[in-house]
Amino acid sequence: MTVLHTPPASPDLDESTAHLRIAESVTSRESSLTQLSTFFDWFTPLRDRSFTDVDRVPLDDMQGWLTDPDTGNLRHSSGRFYSVHGLDIQSPEGPVPRWSQPIIDQPEVGILGILVKKFDGVLHCLMQAKVEPGNCNGLQLSPTVQATRSNYTGVHRGRPVPYLEYFRDLTGHTILADVRQSEQGSWFYQKRNRNMVIEVTDEVETLDEFCWLTIGQVHELLALDDIINMDSRTVLACLPFDGAEPLATPPGDDFRAALLRSFRAGHGARHTTRQILAWLTDVRTRTEVLTRPVPLRDLPGWQRDPAAIAHESGRFFEVIGVHVKAGGREVAEWSQPMIRPQGVGVAAFLVTRIDGVLHALVRAIAQPGYKDVAELAPTVQCVPGNYDVLPEAARPRFLDAVLDATPERIRYDVTLSEEGGRFYHARNRYMVVEVDDDPRFDHPDFRWMPMHQLAGLLRHSYYVNVEARSLVACLHSLSGA
Amino acid sequence: MTVLHTPPASPDLDESTAHLRIAESVTSRESSLTQLSTFFDWFTPLRDRSFTDVDRVPLDDMQGWLTDPDTGNLRHSSGRFYSVHGLDIQSPEGPVPRWSQPIIDQPEVGILGILVKKFDGVLHCLMQAKVEPGNCNGLQLSPTVQATRSNYTGVHRGRPVPYLEYFRDLTGHTILADVRQSEQGSWFYQKRNRNMVIEVTDEVETLDEFCWLTIGQVHELLALDDIINMDSRTVLACLPFDGAEPLATPPGDDFRAALLRSFRAGHGARHTTRQILAWLTDVRTRTEVLTRPVPLRDLPGWQRDPAAIAHESGRFFEVIGVHVKAGGREVAEWSQPMIRPQGVGVAAFLVTRIDGVLHALVRAIAQPGYKDVAELAPTVQCVPGNYDVLPEAARPRFLDAVLDATPERIRYDVTLSEEGGRFYHARNRYMVVEVDDDPRFDHPDFRWMPMHQLAGLLRHSYYVNVEARSLVACLHSLSGA
Repeated sequence: MTVLHTPPASPDLDESTAHLRIAESVTSRESSLTQLSTFFDWFTPLRDRSFTDVDRVPLDDMQGWLTDPDTGNLRHSSGRFYSVHGLDIQSPEGPVPRWSQPIIDQPEVGILGILVKKFDGVLHCLMQAKVEPGNCNGLQLSPTVQATRSNYTGVHRGRPVPYLEYFRDLTGHTILADVRQSEQGSWFYQKRNRNMVIEVTDEVETLDEFCWLTIGQVHELLALDDIINMDSRTVLACLPFDGAEPLATPPGDDFRAALLRSFRAGHGARHTTRQILAWLTDVRTRTEVLTRPVPLRDLPGWQRDPAAIAHESGRFFEVIGVHVKAGGREVAEWSQPMIRPQGVGVAAFLVTRIDGVLHALVRAIAQPGYKDVAELAPTVQCVPGNYDVLPEAARPRFLDAVLDATPERIRYDVTLSEEGGRFYHARNRYMVVEVDDDPRFDHPDFRWMPMHQLAGLLRHSYYVNVEARSLVACLHSLSGA
Repeated sequence: MTVLHTPPASPDLDESTAHLRIAESVTSRESSLTQLSTFFDWFTPLRDRSFTDVDRVPLDDMQGWLTDPDTGNLRHSSGRFYSVHGLDIQSPEGPVPRWSQPIIDQPEVGILGILVKKFDGVLHCLMQAKVEPGNCNGLQLSPTVQATRSNYTGVHRGRPVPYLEYFRDLTGHTILADVRQSEQGSWFYQKRNRNMVIEVTDEVETLDEFCWLTIGQVHELLALDDIINMDSRTVLACLPFDGAEPLATPPGDDFRAALLRSFRAGHGARHTTRQILAWLTDVRTRTEVLTRPVPLRDLPGWQRDPAAIAHESGRFFEVIGVHVKAGGREVAEWSQPMIRPQGVGVAAFLVTRIDGVLHALVRAIAQPGYKDVAELAPTVQCVPGNYDVLPEAARPRFLDAVLDATPERIRYDVTLSEEGGRFYHARNRYMVVEVDDDPRFDHPDFRWMPMHQLAGLLRHSYYVNVEARSLVACLHSLSGA
């Protein structure tokens, strides 16, 4: 879009070419600042040094946390941070018309922000090596800033959040992304975070535990299990990679060429965006999901013992208490409740080439914690074991197409961690599986969409869920190879 | 956007040229079906025939409605339709940090739909002459369908809603618009309606009380007070008028040329859409508006007497009861509570030409009933008299620039009615006032935006408030003259 009358000195002028800078950074696997070959020489000792001891403790023994005498809800004595309460869900048309569950209520909007800056002409992301109590491996790469409102208003009484000022005062910086997005709708009640990418030209001091990586280097690390954390992935997905003019016309008709076209606006789509939006309006209007906060005490189907609040089937997840001792974090020692899922999940896109443009099969799903009924999700998103205790109708469609895929159809298959600050060892196997464009995938809950169409929706809040955003980042990581 | 592999027979093919059909209809003031010169020969006798007697009755005498003994809330004995409860609002940073007020709670998503069809090559809208109890003049022109969920699920026990089937089963039709939008955020609690424009090619029977008008003809009627109702205006604002290729290059540099450019994507904007969205993310994150439903009984500052629930200052609005006898409606006789505002409001856009493109000064405002904190509103939106009892800081910025404008600066000045089904004689003076592009309008709560940028946001829910949508329709009405 032509910008009228913008003062010429403004760095906002750069915004219209952001997709070109991003494309260049995606293809840059070498950097003058950080060599990926030596990345682990820095990361591994840091992991050993940034120890984190996480011990499970009884729910009643979490220091600073209490069980509300009236409701049985878990909350912090300060009244801040988050709480765990019960939720009663009615979804009359769904396979499970009514159920209850514990859910995390964290009403504050936090900031997930990546600072980016050009070095030697190539955009680099300032990534943080961060310990989180729920990580299965201690240290992962997080955005530059990952802060709840409590973090930066001082309730933690910890040291100030480094680099936060770049995301609080945007004057003179270029905003590449700034959009609130939802998080796990089955574990969080209307949780949302502000996903930000801010480009600066200032000198930026590089603190310990931080390193500058090109997007291409972050992408290479996305090929490894449990390194790039969830918050990094969701912010990366909000990058404006869908500029109208391609950096290079993709050659040939192989997978990567179709993928590159998929990321470039101007290449076609199976459905127009208006049709996609009308479909989502219809789903969001038609689907009835009535949620009502209820006391955590005596929640139907759930039992509390000293160690956990768990479902009587042993499925889904449990609420546990942990005590954390950690170096490399604002506060060295604390307790907190966490959600511990039962089993590793699957989050997968089926993809296909339509007229040479890669499309992903997105599903509109309702989850009780969403702000607006339903969001666009991966083709399949589930913990397969949970369905043993649910009606057959609840079994995820196309799960078999994912799990039975032959190896040459599997384009991406990496196990990645979910939010390590609230979830304990929550991991999903993220997969991209290529299939033929077949009428059996034409189903009212699903639509084929290219990446540039998802990118258009990612400029707005609450269209693309957190698991699908991770997969957008994973697919993007395949484009520079 | 190129559509890949769409079956050639699908009328969806027409979608990409919708803005051209709309532009042609906008400039068509003559029609083979309806002559505007004879419109009132049809409308005036219909108004006389479609009588509506609305009598105020004590709140306790509304048939079918009761005052909840515990809360004092007003609700229908069926539990359906809507209710009036109290709301406690805390807005710590606002000029009024805390207040309470009655508010209408109508959680169902209704349908506001205009059916459009080509006659002699020109798109026509099927408009309904509809009586509403709150109208100051009985009859106004509404969309083809204006139905609450209660309407079409039979709670009214009235006759079926005509033409509803076109909006319930979209197979074979072209969806020109289908988006949920908010309504008055100070009187409705999270109310939203589905705004739909559906193009058909079938034979359509024209029932009594309905007539086909070109968009240009509807626009001519928008120059008259209280004819085009609020629901028509909001649906008209959601028309996809912002196609990339202009029908005709506007000549010269006068107001109309700048207005025509404003409606065409591809002409520039003062700020990029990314900057606008980042600004709104910031406002929505920064602004704290905590709302809590509370009993209507003993609401601080409000008094109930037999006739009304009113504010002790005599300002703002009151909740009254009415008894309605009407012909030309589904049910002939009923009672209901209504909101009766104190005084006629002002809803105005200041507009200016920036590089030959007309921009409107939009304001981001928070209202307690919004789904998502804040929406884009007119430059000024208020009932001036209310501010006599509020702090000086609450007085709307730029109100004087609107009210003191010299006649040659006033591009539009028509008094229009708000929703006649819930509001009693609620009217706003809608104004468009041209000003010079002056730094005094650079204020953090305001941004200059061309119409095509607003149109892009109108494809999504909850960005542009109902008063601003009316003004978009009013400005559009000036483009075909």
